[in-house]
Amino acid sequence: MAIGVNCNEHVQGEQAIVDLLAPLTEGDPGAFGLKDDCALLTPAPGVDLVLKTDPIAEGVHFLSGDAPADIAWKALAVNASDLAAKGAAPLGYLMALSFPEAPTRTWMASFVAGLRAAQACFGCHLIGGDTDRRPGPLTVSITLIGSVPQGRAVLRTTAQAGDALFVSGTVGDATLGLALARDSNLATVWGLTPSEASHLIGRYRRPEPRLTLGSALRQHATAAMDVSDGLVKDLERMLRASGVAGRLRAGEVPLSAAARKAIARSPERLAQLLTGGDDYEVLAAVPALRAAEFRAAAAVPVTEVGRLGLGEGLLVEGPDGVVLTFDRTGWDHF
Amino acid sequence: MAIGVNCNEHVQGEQAIVDLLAPLTEGDPGAFGLKDDCALLTPAPGVDLVLKTDPIAEGVHFLSGDAPADIAWKALAVNASDLAAKGAAPLGYLMALSFPEAPTRTWMASFVAGLRAAQACFGCHLIGGDTDRRPGPLTVSITLIGSVPQGRAVLRTTAQAGDALFVSGTVGDATLGLALARDSNLATVWGLTPSEASHLIGRYRRPEPRLTLGSALRQHATAAMDVSDGLVKDLERMLRASGVAGRLRAGEVPLSAAARKAIARSPERLAQLLTGGDDYEVLAAVPALRAAEFRAAAAVPVTEVGRLGLGEGLLVEGPDGVVLTFDRTGWDHF
Repeated sequence: MAIGVNCNEHVQGEQAIVDLLAPLTEGDPGAFGLKDDCALLTPAPGVDLVLKTDPIAEGVHFLSGDAPADIAWKALAVNASDLAAKGAAPLGYLMALSFPEAPTRTWMASFVAGLRAAQACFGCHLIGGDTDRRPGPLTVSITLIGSVPQGRAVLRTTAQAGDALFVSGTVGDATLGLALARDSNLATVWGLTPSEASHLIGRYRRPEPRLTLGSALRQHATAAMDVSDGLVKDLERMLRASGVAGRLRAGEVPLSAAARKAIARSPERLAQLLTGGDDYEVLAAVPALRAAEFRAAAAVPVTEVGRLGLGEGLLVEGPDGVVLTFDRTGWDHF
Repeated sequence: MAIGVNCNEHVQGEQAIVDLLAPLTEGDPGAFGLKDDCALLTPAPGVDLVLKTDPIAEGVHFLSGDAPADIAWKALAVNASDLAAKGAAPLGYLMALSFPEAPTRTWMASFVAGLRAAQACFGCHLIGGDTDRRPGPLTVSITLIGSVPQGRAVLRTTAQAGDALFVSGTVGDATLGLALARDSNLATVWGLTPSEASHLIGRYRRPEPRLTLGSALRQHATAAMDVSDGLVKDLERMLRASGVAGRLRAGEVPLSAAARKAIARSPERLAQLLTGGDDYEVLAAVPALRAAEFRAAAAVPVTEVGRLGLGEGLLVEGPDGVVLTFDRTGWDHF
């Protein structure tokens, strides 16, 4: 930022916002430094492109007090998570930014820093976009484009009866993190250390798409999707899309140490962990005979949590073997 | 729509909205009928992909009384217009739909019909997307992907001193159409026939991207962009991006018969036509020696409206030769 610029002043005009974003295109000639109307992308031979758009809005997908850098990170991460589940690697993204009022230079600097960190971590660049002003919540709409070797994308629709069900990382942290971000007293209720509380909140604010799982998924998984609207709901979607039935063993769903503490104090929250959103973990169906190989190939921890079978519908077994039912299986906007 | 469904009832749940949109993917295997998390696209060999995202929001880019079919058309058209100016052909699009409340089945049916008409006309399919509910205006965010023969995209940054400046179709109709849509008395003030008034309003509600101009642009233009924020402002952007100066002859800017009538009665509106948005025409720079060839190759009328030269900045000559200045040169959200 130039010396003498007042960082709390509002950015004047669309062009000034574009100028602040333009450095995020460096290294990508097809972005033309945001000086053209469109972005160009020349796909490498032998790849399929994988495309996803998933906008995030203040008050819906993030809290109004969240740091601009976290908002930026999350906006890119939620899209990268979908690509990760397909076994794809991000290439570039277009971003439409809608502000209810012009942002300040300080806000933009933090937002750009968050995007810079995320794109360095996920391996992609900003290649184009749009900005406008309108009433309503601040919205960041990213369309992410990635690539996968031709014919090797891991779909949601191809799970097979007999497959073992895996989930990456841990489930439910973000749901607890959101509750903590809204009510910090819960840290005491759950007996969490400050670092455990901050781990859970971090999982809500800065999800880490499982991009390093791509190679293991492409090698071994028959189907995969990311878990973003709740494990139970997303698993039901995979079963429906693939035309198979499933059994989920709730007691084997991987939980972080912090989440286990919270559950020990508030056992009624287990259902919330299984149906809360914002996990951004990968759910994968793997032939049972290749489960060990998949586990060995996976660059992040993966846990077997159930089995697929013939038929339809999902049965969730509680830790005590009793079948669990849910008032809501996951997040639905409508 | 199934018999017995109440068309004024609100669509229940995200999945129901997705199901209503899924038929728009027919013919595109990479869309997986919207059953997967991501879309796949296998580019043909020897092409560059051209990508654009440009959302439209109620009260900002369209009026709240506009028909859902018109909103849908415009959401796709504004993106196709950018591709048209690059000489590209649309392939597929992702769409994020944000509703302040669940839409009715009637609304969705009209919206889907508008998209179906637009995608048939522009030659592309829906391949993926997202829907959510949030406060604020109804928003349709489309990311359109098209292709152009490798290395043949027509850029904004490459106009040359000496080039002739062309604009397609007619300028200013949409600005007058918006004014008419807001105040129908203006039709009488301007002495318009009902069909002239409806022509102007149609130009606002259903812009026609100049996709048929692609071949002439690729053959002859050194630079091009679409005119969406006002002719003067967009031309200034091309000059700045290309590092050249320009002279625009306002008296030669093509106007429709309806616009000429309005100007005859309200001459003060000329500046508004030159700086109003929503034209969705193509501005092209063409080597002066190839101007005749370009005109002959163009599948839609194109009119020479000025010249580019060495230096920087834009000079606009009025019909009487006097230099025109503008309070605002075009639309800016901030």
